[in-house]
Amino acid sequence: MSQREVGKEQQPVSPELFRDVIRHLASGVTIITSMGSGGPVGLTATAVCSVSAKPPMLLVSLNTASHTVEGVKASGAFAVHLLSHADKAYAENFALPEHHFDGVSYRADQATGAPILNKALGYLVCVVENAVPVADHILFIGRVVGCGLNDKQPHPLLYFDRNYRKLSSETETPATILEPWGSAQDIGMVSA
Amino acid sequence: MSQREVGKEQQPVSPELFRDVIRHLASGVTIITSMGSGGPVGLTATAVCSVSAKPPMLLVSLNTASHTVEGVKASGAFAVHLLSHADKAYAENFALPEHHFDGVSYRADQATGAPILNKALGYLVCVVENAVPVADHILFIGRVVGCGLNDKQPHPLLYFDRNYRKLSSETETPATILEPWGSAQDIGMVSA
Repeated sequence: MSQREVGKEQQPVSPELFRDVIRHLASGVTIITSMGSGGPVGLTATAVCSVSAKPPMLLVSLNTASHTVEGVKASGAFAVHLLSHADKAYAENFALPEHHFDGVSYRADQATGAPILNKALGYLVCVVENAVPVADHILFIGRVVGCGLNDKQPHPLLYFDRNYRKLSSETETPATILEPWGSAQDIGMVSA
Repeated sequence: MSQREVGKEQQPVSPELFRDVIRHLASGVTIITSMGSGGPVGLTATAVCSVSAKPPMLLVSLNTASHTVEGVKASGAFAVHLLSHADKAYAENFALPEHHFDGVSYRADQATGAPILNKALGYLVCVVENAVPVADHILFIGRVVGCGLNDKQPHPLLYFDRNYRKLSSETETPATILEPWGSAQDIGMVSA
């Protein structure tokens, strides 16, 4: 292949084409909250990614223009809430421009001040260890300092192809993979 | 609250507790591939996160000890494959320690050399723009230089609570949120 072809190939694809593919990456729906200088802030997001278990770390990707980014920068902490399918109204509410916490029951995390919604499948409170700007977004990489599960028989709220979805109730043969996130099993290193 | 309590609260949670919560974050199952010095490498992963659409960027989180990390470092590129539920055998195969490409049909991306599996729901080829070490993992942040969708009526392979799952076929009311990843809708900035 010629050098010219390589250069041409390495141009980014169009945002439209990218969206058309990436919207088929299924994800759990979350609400990310933080305590801003003017009060609690939060938004609905799917860009949440587990990073490591030892120590427990995860990341979120937020648009730099959002109020939630200001809150995370000001407080150095955020909370990620995993939503149940029954929490769909929460997801819709936090996807609107404002009034996110109206009528929403929450408590402030004792250590970080991050608002923890009382009704969610589960939550993880994180202290920011690193912030990485990427285009018009910022990655907040957090150490998990608190977490909990409210629902022992959870039915998660999913997002796929621009719509909310739920899991099929069909049972499947157990997966061989134990921790697919950051898997090291390609060298046989099953998690210790 | 006393300073002592704050300090105590900000210790990381145990890996066991973290896993018990984060395994309830549903995700699409992917296979991440790259071209290593000794041939194609790859692994099954869920730690894939869309970052921005303008320009199209995504990230993957990989255990630093994996062969796939060596390949991504050597080639400066990787491919992410979104799997259909019918591709479950692929996911199992790439979660094993070796022989990932035995009997697997793939082609090399012309520009980057990244192996593109011919049978997958969709794929995205990325050139590495930044690499961020986090604990025993490394985040590769990539610019999307090629992508495609093979399946127009996709049934994605999901991972939830340590098991493969599929979506329910139930239809739901359309979501208000257009782009929940990195949403900026908390200030009313619906995507332009």
